[in-house]
Amino acid sequence: MAITYELIKTCKQTGARLGKVHTPHGSFETPMFMPVGTLATVKTMSPEELERMGAQIILSNTYHLWLRPGEDIIEEAGGLHKFMNWNGSILTDSGGFQVFSLSDLRKIEEEGVHFRNHISGEKLFLSPEKAMHIQNALGPDIMMAFDECPPYPAEHKYMKDSVERTSRWAERCLEAHKRPHDQGLFGIIQGGEYEDLRRQSARDLTSMDFPGYAIGGLSVGEPKDVMNRVLEFTTPLMPDQKPRYLMGVGSPDSLIDGSIRGIDMFDCVLPTRIARNGTLMTSEGRLVVRNAKFARDFRPIDENCDCHTCRNYSRAYIRHLVKANETFGFRLTTYHNLYFLLNLMRQVREAIREDRLGDFREEFFEMYGFNKPNAKNF
Amino acid sequence: MAITYELIKTCKQTGARLGKVHTPHGSFETPMFMPVGTLATVKTMSPEELERMGAQIILSNTYHLWLRPGEDIIEEAGGLHKFMNWNGSILTDSGGFQVFSLSDLRKIEEEGVHFRNHISGEKLFLSPEKAMHIQNALGPDIMMAFDECPPYPAEHKYMKDSVERTSRWAERCLEAHKRPHDQGLFGIIQGGEYEDLRRQSARDLTSMDFPGYAIGGLSVGEPKDVMNRVLEFTTPLMPDQKPRYLMGVGSPDSLIDGSIRGIDMFDCVLPTRIARNGTLMTSEGRLVVRNAKFARDFRPIDENCDCHTCRNYSRAYIRHLVKANETFGFRLTTYHNLYFLLNLMRQVREAIREDRLGDFREEFFEMYGFNKPNAKNF
Repeated sequence: MAITYELIKTCKQTGARLGKVHTPHGSFETPMFMPVGTLATVKTMSPEELERMGAQIILSNTYHLWLRPGEDIIEEAGGLHKFMNWNGSILTDSGGFQVFSLSDLRKIEEEGVHFRNHISGEKLFLSPEKAMHIQNALGPDIMMAFDECPPYPAEHKYMKDSVERTSRWAERCLEAHKRPHDQGLFGIIQGGEYEDLRRQSARDLTSMDFPGYAIGGLSVGEPKDVMNRVLEFTTPLMPDQKPRYLMGVGSPDSLIDGSIRGIDMFDCVLPTRIARNGTLMTSEGRLVVRNAKFARDFRPIDENCDCHTCRNYSRAYIRHLVKANETFGFRLTTYHNLYFLLNLMRQVREAIREDRLGDFREEFFEMYGFNKPNAKNF
Repeated sequence: MAITYELIKTCKQTGARLGKVHTPHGSFETPMFMPVGTLATVKTMSPEELERMGAQIILSNTYHLWLRPGEDIIEEAGGLHKFMNWNGSILTDSGGFQVFSLSDLRKIEEEGVHFRNHISGEKLFLSPEKAMHIQNALGPDIMMAFDECPPYPAEHKYMKDSVERTSRWAERCLEAHKRPHDQGLFGIIQGGEYEDLRRQSARDLTSMDFPGYAIGGLSVGEPKDVMNRVLEFTTPLMPDQKPRYLMGVGSPDSLIDGSIRGIDMFDCVLPTRIARNGTLMTSEGRLVVRNAKFARDFRPIDENCDCHTCRNYSRAYIRHLVKANETFGFRLTTYHNLYFLLNLMRQVREAIREDRLGDFREEFFEMYGFNKPNAKNF
């Protein structure tokens, strides 16, 4: 098996799992956050910086790399790791999410999805077989099955049809996957907010014996308590001895709440995207560094942070760079936000080890301001 | 004296000087190229990267920092070195060049220059005293006198008036400079292509005993042979025991030809600016990495280069990033171009040490393609 999961311990206070995922490019500790490198680069960052901040696995996007530069070029380069000079683990999504989020003119058939290239407008077709072909060429450690990710809210009837099609597509993915010895394929459990459909999807997919499972279709606009409720009835349906990945989730509160509900892996563009707008995550909440009040503030972004940005640069300098649209400013904010989440996951793992993740959650939420009535989240 | 020059040796083949400039923030070897960090950042680069590529001194811009974030903020931060986290030497220009190159509505008077802010349109006034005040607040190791930089070509009459005014302004700069103990002020010799005016300007300025001298008003559109001729009659007018700085020059051939004519310091936005357009300097000439022919070219940018970019990344990957407008692509191209020029200067210094800079020039020009009839320069 290309991917194996090692359970180290379960938090007595919350049930959260401390573990390790072993991949052909090293192991990573869980719960873990994966920075997103859409186009074979985590925007503004170098591989050395990702390593220095503690990233052990990054995510890249099948759909985007298929269009630019093309999976054949990456295969010819020796695969994604070599192409982008990243020797840690890589997970690629299946392109399914982008087909549904970036393309208007899509048509879903049993065979696959017809849609238009979001850059050129050209007609394209993606199917389970095509998604496997591309990911086999890209060569990530972890591949994702091609699924449909319906919007929130969706009718029960629509969702049921979609879940059943996603299960049929999952079987075709397993069939089409050419490199199971060195690439682990994860199945994606869908079903929206419907417990019966999540149950049906989990039953279908676990019967197929993927080396890992994801929960898809969350963080698509539903309230946080809906997400938490879905996790509560879905993670118990997933095998204990395999990694569990909650797709597209990256706000600090959701990383903690997801871990508490048994999730091992997370990814999200949130930290990198808001960084490029000058918004920072700090131990005391959101900081919008463009604000005039930081013009002469020579303190670090987060006085409780020991990242490279916070050890060497002031709010005043970063504000100046961001306002002048200087690249180095976005490097500093991106580094800080990613470090913040990776460090949060380190703290979560430490708290699991010490059976106090519930206490940690309370302390973190209090300091971050999530407990305040009008708390600004992301 | 804040700035001293140590002459190590003179090339027996060419007369080029090998030396060292000692500043309050360490020493740098000459001839040296200075990367330009207009807004307190060398675009896309970190201070660590600048250090790693061998930069020992960088240049920053008085005019730009005066407008954004304001010299008072940088002074309050503890000066430019601390503000931007760069512990090597820094030189700032006087703002004179930007006033003349960026502003249309300028009015030159004996007192100074009235002009408009190139961003907001606001009316501004810059004078020798103001330029000194700003540079004293910014705190670079080397400051530049406030001068007029006339366009090329300029009438002899206009140039003579300008040179004389620049000399009067230089006296006022010396008078207004408040930190001569820890900031060295360089005078700027003007006079365009006119030998008599360069002579007059050099005589005026050397009589004032600045710790270093620059040649201004070149690389403003004149042919290369005009630049070389002006250098030939101007550098002999400059004191042997002080550094000589040729402002705004950074093409590889001009760095070699300037060194041969006795220049110690150079700066230019060329390597960083063209990098952000995907154009690279290589030992075999210009390489435009956007070109389709590099889509599957997995060789480094320059097969003779040992820089971080060339040791780790392919033309195909960099082309992909540049075409997708990904920041990391511009980091890689910028790093390479700056390394290329800093490494060229290392080779120039080595050739001076071995009395073979003339031979080195021939070899370099041959390989680079400068000797070909239709050679593409920058």
